[in-house]
Amino acid sequence: MLANTLTRRVEWGDCDPAGIVFNPQFFRWFDHGTAMLYEAAGWPKQEMLARFGALGCPLVETRASFRAPCRYGDDVAITSEIAEVKQRSFDIRHTLRRGDVVCVEGFETRVWTVHDDERGLKSAPLPDELVQRFLAGGPADRS
Amino acid sequence: MLANTLTRRVEWGDCDPAGIVFNPQFFRWFDHGTAMLYEAAGWPKQEMLARFGALGCPLVETRASFRAPCRYGDDVAITSEIAEVKQRSFDIRHTLRRGDVVCVEGFETRVWTVHDDERGLKSAPLPDELVQRFLAGGPADRS
Amino acid sequence: MLANTLTRRVEWGDCDPAGIVFNPQFFRWFDHGTAMLYEAAGWPKQEMLARFGALGCPLVETRASFRAPCRYGDDVAITSEIAEVKQRSFDIRHTLRRGDVVCVEGFETRVWTVHDDERGLKSAPLPDELVQRFLAGGPADRS
Amino acid sequence: MLANTLTRRVEWGDCDPAGIVFNPQFFRWFDHGTAMLYEAAGWPKQEMLARFGALGCPLVETRASFRAPCRYGDDVAITSEIAEVKQRSFDIRHTLRRGDVVCVEGFETRVWTVHDDERGLKSAPLPDELVQRFLAGGPADRS
Repeated sequence: MLANTLTRRVEWGDCDPAGIVFNPQFFRWFDHGTAMLYEAAGWPKQEMLARFGALGCPLVETRASFRAPCRYGDDVAITSEIAEVKQRSFDIRHTLRRGDVVCVEGFETRVWTVHDDERGLKSAPLPDELVQRFLAGGPADRS
Repeated sequence: MLANTLTRRVEWGDCDPAGIVFNPQFFRWFDHGTAMLYEAAGWPKQEMLARFGALGCPLVETRASFRAPCRYGDDVAITSEIAEVKQRSFDIRHTLRRGDVVCVEGFETRVWTVHDDERGLKSAPLPDELVQRFLAGGPADRS
Repeated sequence: MLANTLTRRVEWGDCDPAGIVFNPQFFRWFDHGTAMLYEAAGWPKQEMLARFGALGCPLVETRASFRAPCRYGDDVAITSEIAEVKQRSFDIRHTLRRGDVVCVEGFETRVWTVHDDERGLKSAPLPDELVQRFLAGGPADRS
Repeated sequence: MLANTLTRRVEWGDCDPAGIVFNPQFFRWFDHGTAMLYEAAGWPKQEMLARFGALGCPLVETRASFRAPCRYGDDVAITSEIAEVKQRSFDIRHTLRRGDVVCVEGFETRVWTVHDDERGLKSAPLPDELVQRFLAGGPADRS
């Protein structure tokens, strides 16, 4: 399965008066982790959408478990990976670690959408080439 | 069960290049919805914590379902309500509506924590008075 | 001159580990204050742009002075007012108060822009009707 | 003078419905640029404050000029540098570039503060060692 890891330094403005990362911030990082996963598949998001004639990959479900707090100045690593590829949607698992400690686990379900004259957008089957990249691990098969 | 509704106008800065609310923003609103729920129980958050000698109510789990997009200028209402009160934690359900349309459903699990000499903080049973307020619907029993 | 005041409760997520509002948050509020000023002139932003065939009012300069901190739970009022109307741009002054205390003063310069075939957008003279509303104080002259 | 450059990829969530970076986001980046400048001086912010018995370096004035828009996916570089060191405050200049194009120029004035029994905090003269680092360009004099 395709996976990608990005690192971040926790910034002052990411944290709340308790001195820990304010929870919505993690969802910003996960959203970016997914965008970087598309790049790891071989295409920046806008290029991927244009190539396959898609409108977007809107989020329909997300969840997160918070196991350990992150603080200002912490260096964290976020690993984003394809967890499952379904016909018209796919799941991404995000694991945020500080060193060996798993601090947050996140999970997203996104739907592949194309233009629809009546409703604006509708779900559609994922293109085969994209599915191959998601399953294989990137532009060059690293499995 | 205690419930409270707040309203918001969707701002330009809440939205992404697709013209819809960027998903982490909903979690900011839910966090504030929970804070307003404490006020509906009778105490602003800091006052509630001080009264019961608690450290905080950290989020341990959250999830959301996105059913319909919200756009710049939309007026939305977020109803936050106690969904379940357990011994050391409680669940909050958030329902964001635009008119009659449910756009987002959110769910939080928070733990009641107190100071611990060794570990900094530890979970503790919810105070009876707080449980009563959560179950009854506010400072004056509106059930 | 046109003016409008909005109120906000300072939220937990607006504040940093020092327990005070993180400064970029003020610029979010000022941006929204300007949008509300357009509504006070008689048109929501998108409607105003459509009516006059404009592309937008991009910010070209902004500045702020921070005189007193704002904290979680504070109720603040932000007054946004047209400070000056020039031929192709206009200035907005924002004053954020907690009770009688001025906490932050902000200032924006925005340019009126229309579509340009070559460069995408170019500045243009403000429409007379808009200038009248900015100078007079709103849809009905309240001066 | 001390200077430091950091790079960022513009994220989806940094941008507004016009597809460009929402202006408050630049102030988040400038704030982080200043924190990284302290590290370039030889100390992470909290360590610097502890070493010199200071409370913080609150922002008292800031301003920015927006010359060219930044878009989703752009790689930008932010150079933060000490612009002037005064007795009780210092100025930082931030220059955000995309390639050779200067997109945003920012400017901050921050005050050195220490604890005061009566007022909570008060301004104080910058410590000599810090002034030396700010003027010289870092832990090893690179001037």
